[in-house]
Amino acid sequence: MAAGEMERIVLARHIAGLPTPADFRLERLPIPALEEGQLLIRNSFVSCDPGTRSRLSPGASYAPPLAPGAPVDGFCVGTVVESRNPRFAVGDRVTATGWSTHVISNGRGYVLKLPALAVPESLWIGLLGVPGMTAWFGLKRVAALAAGERVLITSAAGPVGATAGQLAKLWGASEVVGIAGGAEKCAWLRSIGFDHAVDYKAADFEAQFAAAAAPGFDVMFDNVGNAMIDRALLFMKLRGRIVMSGQVADYSTPEGAVPGIVNTREFIGKRLRMEGLLVFDDLPGFAAAQAEMAALIEAGTLQYREEIFEGLASLPEAFCGLFTGASFGRRLVKL
Amino acid sequence: MAAGEMERIVLARHIAGLPTPADFRLERLPIPALEEGQLLIRNSFVSCDPGTRSRLSPGASYAPPLAPGAPVDGFCVGTVVESRNPRFAVGDRVTATGWSTHVISNGRGYVLKLPALAVPESLWIGLLGVPGMTAWFGLKRVAALAAGERVLITSAAGPVGATAGQLAKLWGASEVVGIAGGAEKCAWLRSIGFDHAVDYKAADFEAQFAAAAAPGFDVMFDNVGNAMIDRALLFMKLRGRIVMSGQVADYSTPEGAVPGIVNTREFIGKRLRMEGLLVFDDLPGFAAAQAEMAALIEAGTLQYREEIFEGLASLPEAFCGLFTGASFGRRLVKL
Repeated sequence: MAAGEMERIVLARHIAGLPTPADFRLERLPIPALEEGQLLIRNSFVSCDPGTRSRLSPGASYAPPLAPGAPVDGFCVGTVVESRNPRFAVGDRVTATGWSTHVISNGRGYVLKLPALAVPESLWIGLLGVPGMTAWFGLKRVAALAAGERVLITSAAGPVGATAGQLAKLWGASEVVGIAGGAEKCAWLRSIGFDHAVDYKAADFEAQFAAAAAPGFDVMFDNVGNAMIDRALLFMKLRGRIVMSGQVADYSTPEGAVPGIVNTREFIGKRLRMEGLLVFDDLPGFAAAQAEMAALIEAGTLQYREEIFEGLASLPEAFCGLFTGASFGRRLVKL
Repeated sequence: MAAGEMERIVLARHIAGLPTPADFRLERLPIPALEEGQLLIRNSFVSCDPGTRSRLSPGASYAPPLAPGAPVDGFCVGTVVESRNPRFAVGDRVTATGWSTHVISNGRGYVLKLPALAVPESLWIGLLGVPGMTAWFGLKRVAALAAGERVLITSAAGPVGATAGQLAKLWGASEVVGIAGGAEKCAWLRSIGFDHAVDYKAADFEAQFAAAAAPGFDVMFDNVGNAMIDRALLFMKLRGRIVMSGQVADYSTPEGAVPGIVNTREFIGKRLRMEGLLVFDDLPGFAAAQAEMAALIEAGTLQYREEIFEGLASLPEAFCGLFTGASFGRRLVKL
């Protein structure tokens, strides 16, 4: 990449089913001259988020689908290297969005200056970014977790799930049960404080889960989708809350093949509540939560895992691993 | 029925699919002598409630299933004719539960003295009873309906739905859309203030519904079940609420054939909330709501329909009609 150039990942074609690296293309292009009000960010890290999947096929989602050829968005953190925007100065460290080496922005939307907290830069798109904030506000605001409650977390070894499990314990949950794929992830979950970790790849998963589920859950924090929710419904306690934070198993399932939630009669009898979460609703609370979270990280109270890939070209492969169970922790690409 | 005798309806056999009158049996038995603390109620009216269905088959429900031979419960209103309970005197008018001419009770549970309101007796198990209170608290507490919102109501010509629709308009809903079966019910819904009534039996129901649904719903008040919720999800607005009040279409569907809710990706994008309602949670608020509701009825502001059957022997037939679309209004049996 020559000086004055940038690279970005674009969608090569709409995706049916599981994404593969061939669904993406790396593009090199000259960095355009900034217009009045714009700034140029040089990214340090770009993240892989399962939610990105939902925009890569046509059809309903929480954001309009991308057209083939369009640049793909993901969270990134970097430094302002040029600015024609009075709110940003060269040297400012910011989070933004873009699967790219550089971001040209008008400074609006999700372009936020980093608070002055001494944490590794990558955490601003990890525990102090959307995954961590999702765990925080999902438990605190949506689930309204109370001390003494039992909590179920799916995709528990992912960055949202692992953080949510640890926060639940910190905030007084009596027991936290995590579901993850494979013995290694389950062992890690136990090592960071989960009371039970159940391997969904195990032959006796259903029996293991039923044993860990008793005497039921007050809160389910779901990152997986309909099949997991349907299973958990049978184990929810009176006035239980289900937080829908992500649907990684359903994003890649072709329309017509997504499993339905059938066990809904549990809702009336147990007065269950199920609610979807998009953490941008909680932006006004981010700074305070980030400060608390940073203190917990610095104190060693909150554990996390990162998988760092090198170079933008590795991003498609890193992303596709989110949907096969290959990822373990926060997947980031270092630029 | 001789003096000193009572009649009751018992479950003849567990029910698979739609209930039929042959699934029930009328039993005559002597009224036992009261024990200390008990009271004897002579019923005037007994009601048919779709929720009763869920206890007539084995399997999960919000109450344990009845065994064949067990007496069936439904709401009733009557007069205390004998009392060995200091809290109840002969002549007290009460609501209770029992598909029977008489109820012997210890005075606990759902045995409530009627407040001093001048309304027809049948309304105590209708608009002032569980259906009316379900409509009231479903909109007020669970949906937290705000003025200016658009509301969808299913099984809208039933006692819960029709009441909910009228209350929604009274409380400032901008538009209320009802779904019901047949032109007659739809015409009645329009006559009592629904802005749109859509006939689910019409050949072009889906198109009619889509037209009435635009520009979406802030609140769905569902009495039908999964298929209706799945359809409505695509038309919910940002921060919409779905009140699960009943599942009349699913109660009689054999296990394994109940449709699932598939369109759950709407939950995250639109931050939807879905919550089950059992109105007994709101018992402390009944008296105030009943007083307001009685005033609305007396003023002619709130319309309702009753279908009165005569004699306990007619109860099974009256009940079974709830599940075929034959009922239109509150189905009661006069004793």
